[in-house]
Amino acid sequence: MDNTDRASVGLAVSTVIFALRSDDRFGAEGAVPTLWLPLVRRIREPFEGRWALPGGPLGASEGLADAARRTLGDTTGLAPRYLEQLYAFGDLDRSPASRVVSIVYWALVGSDEAARATVGQNVRWFAADELPALAFDHNLIVEYALWRLRNKMEYSRIAHALLGETFTLAQLREVHEAVRGKRLDPANFRRAMESSDSLVDTGERLTGTPHRPPKLYRYDDSVDLADNGPLPRS
Amino acid sequence: MDNTDRASVGLAVSTVIFALRSDDRFGAEGAVPTLWLPLVRRIREPFEGRWALPGGPLGASEGLADAARRTLGDTTGLAPRYLEQLYAFGDLDRSPASRVVSIVYWALVGSDEAARATVGQNVRWFAADELPALAFDHNLIVEYALWRLRNKMEYSRIAHALLGETFTLAQLREVHEAVRGKRLDPANFRRAMESSDSLVDTGERLTGTPHRPPKLYRYDDSVDLADNGPLPRS
Repeated sequence: MDNTDRASVGLAVSTVIFALRSDDRFGAEGAVPTLWLPLVRRIREPFEGRWALPGGPLGASEGLADAARRTLGDTTGLAPRYLEQLYAFGDLDRSPASRVVSIVYWALVGSDEAARATVGQNVRWFAADELPALAFDHNLIVEYALWRLRNKMEYSRIAHALLGETFTLAQLREVHEAVRGKRLDPANFRRAMESSDSLVDTGERLTGTPHRPPKLYRYDDSVDLADNGPLPRS
Repeated sequence: MDNTDRASVGLAVSTVIFALRSDDRFGAEGAVPTLWLPLVRRIREPFEGRWALPGGPLGASEGLADAARRTLGDTTGLAPRYLEQLYAFGDLDRSPASRVVSIVYWALVGSDEAARATVGQNVRWFAADELPALAFDHNLIVEYALWRLRNKMEYSRIAHALLGETFTLAQLREVHEAVRGKRLDPANFRRAMESSDSLVDTGERLTGTPHRPPKLYRYDDSVDLADNGPLPRS
């Protein structure tokens, strides 16, 4: 590990930040939550004017996850509900300028918090399924992050991080629909969730709804979210 | 990605290299294959004299996986049968000297090839379950790589990479036993493999064995090994 040629390769940390936002592209009555992510417009070359993942050089006294968390805060004013290292991208030709290796994290922020996100200068939220051509290899990176999110969703309680503390079964189903990109049968979904023993009935019901308000659930706190790096829990 | 403070953080690539080697620690008749990995003795500070994962600084014009492959070749004279990025380790205190972020790969080499591995100066193979205190955070890294290997073994054909082109069911079971660290029931294992439709009966039998020689199998080539990075196959 010594004798590193410190002049040779730059090191950056970038973050793919996912949140559910209600989507009015299809008109108000078709508004369903879909996956969105904030991007930053580049104000210099290379790729000046293009949109890119938020990120930047790793500080000399900054941990990798701390850099990702800082980036998220700078871009949205938010803290991550879930944060995980995605991959280190280091292809030789990923930047037309100098060589940079980017260690990329992906994060989930709650939809209630995302609605309050600050939008800094040169920041804009985009629907994950409708991105423009991004700077560098960032389209590839987002695609990989989406794949990881979908995989995780199937075998862990990651949906938690996109919801508030309590939620209805319909809200939980909307998260799964947004991530998987397809509609799910409400009755089948209800059966699958009720048999998974990961949900706790809070005894409360959603307020502000006409007659028969739906039950509110929360996740069982005694079970952690998915592993997010070394070392895994035994 | 620009304006990186290139003087601040070093970037290294290290590789955890697994192979099956027959283990004579328990006497010749108890010799079963177990997981081994080659380590390199450090010849300078920090951690002079301690064993460490093979690796070194990333070359300015070298891809990440290429650096891992080169490291593997330098250490063992071998090429990887399987190679995958494990994780980027960047804790502030992982080296008492200057700050270095290590992007770590893990690799599998075939047991037949491993038996022919060259052993360079200051290189020694260690049983994965009996490592000394290594330099830096390398014990943690090996533990994480073992966890990843065990996970992958359960849902993919990764065992392939630790075997020759053809193998008996007993040899395949020994790979699973070595990785999972426990004995498996031969009859149950046979049933599970025969129902998995991933094995192809070559029509040949192991030579050099007394009467009833066991069948030789190979993996179905039409199915790829597990995903090893972006982008996943659809």
